[in-house]
Amino acid sequence: MAAVADEDSLRRALAQKQSSIDVQGGAVRQLKSSGAAKLDIEAAVQSLNALKLEKASIESQLQAALAGAAGGGSSSASRDAFRQAVVNTLERRLFYIPSFKIYRGVAGLYDYGPPGCSVKSNVLAFWRQHFVLEENMLEVDCPCVTPEVVLKASGHVEKFTDLMVKDEKTGTCYRADHLLKDFCKEKLEKDFSLSAEKAAELKHILAVLDDLSAEQLGAKIKEYGITAPDTKNPLSDPYPFNLMFQTSIGPSGVSPGYMRPETAQGIFVNFRDLYYYNGNKLPFAAAQIGQAFRNEISPRQGLLRVREFTLAEIEHFVDPQDKSHPKFSDVAKLEFLMFPRDDQVSGQCAKKLQLGEAVSLGIVNNETLGYFIGRVYLFLTRLGIDKDRLRFRQHLANEMAHYAADCWDAEIESSYGWIECVGIADRSAYDLRAHSEKSSVALVAQEKFSEPREVEKLVITSIKKELGLAFKGNQKMVTEALEAMEEKVAMEMKADLESKGEVEFHVCTIGKNVTIKKNMVSISKEIKKEHQRVFTPSVIEPSFGIGRIIYCLYEHSFYTRPSKAGDEQLNVFSFPPLVAPIKCTVFPLVQNKKYEEVAKLISKSLTAAGISHKIDITGTSIGKRYARTDELGVPFAITVDSTSSVTVRERDSKDQVRVDVEKVASVVREVTDGLSSWADVLKMYPLHSSETAEE
Amino acid sequence: MAAVADEDSLRRALAQKQSSIDVQGGAVRQLKSSGAAKLDIEAAVQSLNALKLEKASIESQLQAALAGAAGGGSSSASRDAFRQAVVNTLERRLFYIPSFKIYRGVAGLYDYGPPGCSVKSNVLAFWRQHFVLEENMLEVDCPCVTPEVVLKASGHVEKFTDLMVKDEKTGTCYRADHLLKDFCKEKLEKDFSLSAEKAAELKHILAVLDDLSAEQLGAKIKEYGITAPDTKNPLSDPYPFNLMFQTSIGPSGVSPGYMRPETAQGIFVNFRDLYYYNGNKLPFAAAQIGQAFRNEISPRQGLLRVREFTLAEIEHFVDPQDKSHPKFSDVAKLEFLMFPRDDQVSGQCAKKLQLGEAVSLGIVNNETLGYFIGRVYLFLTRLGIDKDRLRFRQHLANEMAHYAADCWDAEIESSYGWIECVGIADRSAYDLRAHSEKSSVALVAQEKFSEPREVEKLVITSIKKELGLAFKGNQKMVTEALEAMEEKVAMEMKADLESKGEVEFHVCTIGKNVTIKKNMVSISKEIKKEHQRVFTPSVIEPSFGIGRIIYCLYEHSFYTRPSKAGDEQLNVFSFPPLVAPIKCTVFPLVQNKKYEEVAKLISKSLTAAGISHKIDITGTSIGKRYARTDELGVPFAITVDSTSSVTVRERDSKDQVRVDVEKVASVVREVTDGLSSWADVLKMYPLHSSETAEE
Repeated sequence: MAAVADEDSLRRALAQKQSSIDVQGGAVRQLKSSGAAKLDIEAAVQSLNALKLEKASIESQLQAALAGAAGGGSSSASRDAFRQAVVNTLERRLFYIPSFKIYRGVAGLYDYGPPGCSVKSNVLAFWRQHFVLEENMLEVDCPCVTPEVVLKASGHVEKFTDLMVKDEKTGTCYRADHLLKDFCKEKLEKDFSLSAEKAAELKHILAVLDDLSAEQLGAKIKEYGITAPDTKNPLSDPYPFNLMFQTSIGPSGVSPGYMRPETAQGIFVNFRDLYYYNGNKLPFAAAQIGQAFRNEISPRQGLLRVREFTLAEIEHFVDPQDKSHPKFSDVAKLEFLMFPRDDQVSGQCAKKLQLGEAVSLGIVNNETLGYFIGRVYLFLTRLGIDKDRLRFRQHLANEMAHYAADCWDAEIESSYGWIECVGIADRSAYDLRAHSEKSSVALVAQEKFSEPREVEKLVITSIKKELGLAFKGNQKMVTEALEAMEEKVAMEMKADLESKGEVEFHVCTIGKNVTIKKNMVSISKEIKKEHQRVFTPSVIEPSFGIGRIIYCLYEHSFYTRPSKAGDEQLNVFSFPPLVAPIKCTVFPLVQNKKYEEVAKLISKSLTAAGISHKIDITGTSIGKRYARTDELGVPFAITVDSTSSVTVRERDSKDQVRVDVEKVASVVREVTDGLSSWADVLKMYPLHSSETAEE
Repeated sequence: MAAVADEDSLRRALAQKQSSIDVQGGAVRQLKSSGAAKLDIEAAVQSLNALKLEKASIESQLQAALAGAAGGGSSSASRDAFRQAVVNTLERRLFYIPSFKIYRGVAGLYDYGPPGCSVKSNVLAFWRQHFVLEENMLEVDCPCVTPEVVLKASGHVEKFTDLMVKDEKTGTCYRADHLLKDFCKEKLEKDFSLSAEKAAELKHILAVLDDLSAEQLGAKIKEYGITAPDTKNPLSDPYPFNLMFQTSIGPSGVSPGYMRPETAQGIFVNFRDLYYYNGNKLPFAAAQIGQAFRNEISPRQGLLRVREFTLAEIEHFVDPQDKSHPKFSDVAKLEFLMFPRDDQVSGQCAKKLQLGEAVSLGIVNNETLGYFIGRVYLFLTRLGIDKDRLRFRQHLANEMAHYAADCWDAEIESSYGWIECVGIADRSAYDLRAHSEKSSVALVAQEKFSEPREVEKLVITSIKKELGLAFKGNQKMVTEALEAMEEKVAMEMKADLESKGEVEFHVCTIGKNVTIKKNMVSISKEIKKEHQRVFTPSVIEPSFGIGRIIYCLYEHSFYTRPSKAGDEQLNVFSFPPLVAPIKCTVFPLVQNKKYEEVAKLISKSLTAAGISHKIDITGTSIGKRYARTDELGVPFAITVDSTSSVTVRERDSKDQVRVDVEKVASVVREVTDGLSSWADVLKMYPLHSSETAEE
């Protein structure tokens, strides 16, 4: 926050300096036009120049302050350069490919090429292991094509929109908030003449951008004179555009459908069957991995904002009266960066908290939510996400849906800033209730009591005959209003009727008071025996944007180092073995039948050990082959330089050890499976000098 | 074919009998109206009744013959009952769920529930292992949303249609061929008065149904007076309906897109990058697993014809001049049911052929195609598809696209008949050429010659000035026609020009002959040095309908057996461990802390051994728990009945052996991994009598 204070005072100093310059400039002009002495004029000009120099110095301080504030230290230019290096490597090595590239592509659509595909399937396999298998979740797989009725119930048809403006002449579409955001950022970063007050206003807009209504956005766009970026044409007023890809199911054209914007709804509509499958017991979780679709207005941010993506979602159904979690103690001791609502509002930074404390202090709403936050932390860090660039940010009150109990996003820092990669929300009973209502199918759970419980129940019986005589056509509305009374109101009426014989009663549905007499209604409390409690479960939803996680993983894993000759920078992805597209490469040192046979032998034993690997028998120098494999993030390379023993090289340290041919597969397996560390291997096997390895 | 001959003669016999009845009926009426003697009338009526009895007997013979022909032995009713039993079990145990069931579902959309989801992911994991990893394929993962330009190039926008008719009053849509097919089948099965000639006609229609044009279909529908099934309203003429789900990409509404109808196009458009990734070497294969979409007009056949499904596709790119395969010998000895084109045309049945022979005899076009046929056979049978209900059927000439070199479908017999589950097509260079043309990006491969080759090339040089003088406005057309001459034509012209000085030459583009003189064109053959050959690769495409394979697997794995008490039929899925949703269940025999702890211990060691399993601690009888687990196809059950040793039960034999607690995980692992057979286990461990197991 120091940077911001700095910025503010610098802008003020700059404005002061500018007005001094204006004054001094006026003085110089005055002296010149009044034909003052040359010496006097020169002195005045000298002062003016001194002021201008001082202004330039403040400007460069401001520039530095702005860069520092935006980048957390690194400048925007260096972040862009870093991103460019990562993206170039990813694209050149086919981690991803802009889809339909030979047709000049489609914004927001990307293919995973071979290594990207492996990384993705490794991440998904680990997700399945870490969540579905370890937690005994019920996995389902539902279609992407979804009929309108489902997405009306969920609220997507009405509310899943972004505000859009159109270039009034060309019809090109833009996201209204993006244009306003770009304008504010550009002004703040580049306009040094901005007053401190104006700067504060623009910053406020950036802070509340997500909350602005169409009208407010439109007013700001008008006020600031924002035009279409490409043409400078005027823009339309903002209006909502639904982000779902629409289609039509069947040939008749009368059954609208959408490509699902999330996988969760497929689970909610199956709640009844899944609850039964789980032996009618709570809590349980269902999970789904699958494609989801958002027809973004104008996708930016490369791989982070795409029109089709893989989601992995969990819906953990739980009794709203008991959100404890039996395994919470497994994660309670974890400590990591958290960013609670209050700290955000009071302008503090994310800080390290112990998860157990966060729950016991009520910062995190309940144990189950806390448990999943902990499990998500473990999942992401085991994949290789840097724990110092991962934080859990709580939603502000205005960010959360009205029904949500609490909401935390796992945000990962990338060159684009902090990116939401996993959302973990306690959505209370909202979704099940919404589908219950629309479908008229009860989506509820029962708690059977071990023995019946006596419950005092309010019983309101309206006497139809008397009500009919008194209210005729309004009888139904009056009856309904009476029967809907809450306990407190009803007991007051009971007392009044007993003491006064009649009472005034307001009926909203007919909009007036009526007089209720003692003979029209009987109100009492009765003891009833209940054998079970029927309730709508709450749902806690961790939702993972797989593509975003993978992209952040790419950035966190990427680094460069000079080649041995020092003439170029070599790229490395430091993926952990769990994620690496292949675990090991096998290089015969020179093209030679004997070595190739040893390589094949090793390949067989690697296959038997379940290690994905590749043999590279090209005649390229071993150094180049290492570089090629580092760029794919392959953790280990076996070089065959004799028929009895071979070298194993670790990617990041470039250390090599010498291992017998028969043992090498099991050594590689031990380290890739995490049973031993590379340090263990270094202790057990002789270090191999890299000279012979030609690196 | 015996059944058909039978049917034919029975229909003829029936028609004869009917005319005898008509004649005799006339005679009876005649006798009655003419007041003949009672005895005479009685005698005539008796003859009539005898004829009617004979007719009834022929009818029931015909009925039996028809059922036999349709079911290959089993009656249509018993097949329906079997299917119902399978489907009931699948739906009750949530192998699948009609999607959006609480909203009364959408035809042709199904969810995979928890066990179905496991089966699917096991099948896909094995597919990846068997094809992608073992064959070093390049896996990619492309979006479902596809811009129109791609599907125009592939031909889907124009040709991916079914013919549809509409109820002219209600607008309800039907597939035209389905209505005609239903009509013909119903007539053939239920109308015993059908003449043998008419029956032959209807059978012919069924045989050529797929080839009928819109006009032919419409004419038949009119001729037979077919009306809308639900309302009996008249039907519209058939017209093509495109089966792709259409949508719009981006907010402008001017970029049409479709949900991909197959995954293959994503690979074709990436050919250039993948070829480069593979070191510019052929052959190589790319693979993709993903969702595909077909907006079926009126989906029937349950899980077999759906609107969204998972495809797994391979595109193997190969030099058209060399379709040999280095690993063909690995599959050449395989022998299985094949159904070559000629045998289909000549009315024979599928027969066992050795794959190597089929290729060497030219029945299968080339080794690479043959290799994939063999690999598909191994894949399907290892999953548990019955090899006697699996055949490879070659496409008839009229079924294949004009560009295809050869095409075989892996068909699996189910209660619906023989179902196409995998298509294996040699599509020649069609797809790459189509995208090359539309995108103007060369999708080609180069073969670099180890040393330059001398190639004799035809060189035709037209002399512009002379041609211009002679043909003026037609010069361009004449020039193009001259330069497009094939070698033979050109060399003849050269000879003629040399001997006669001029020659008549037909130019199609201007529709007449022109006179070409010696000074207008120079034709020669020159020796040129070429360093490489540039060509469009052929593609061999095995394409797997994963959902169909899984459904057929369910049918092939399902059987029932009586419960021990004999009072009910119990359902069993005999999945091999590879496919089974979980490999093992663990049952404490009675609810008891000691046993539950042993169960947890075993669970830990199973997890360590990588065996998916479930503990069932419900107090239900062990027999019921076995039945429950058999219905999910779980191959092994461990029952904890002591703290030192436990029993392991095999699902299909119900045999049980007694194994030490510490050994049990490794025993189960050995059999589920296929390292030992159950027979081996029976030899090594003492058999456990089932009495104590309460089964």
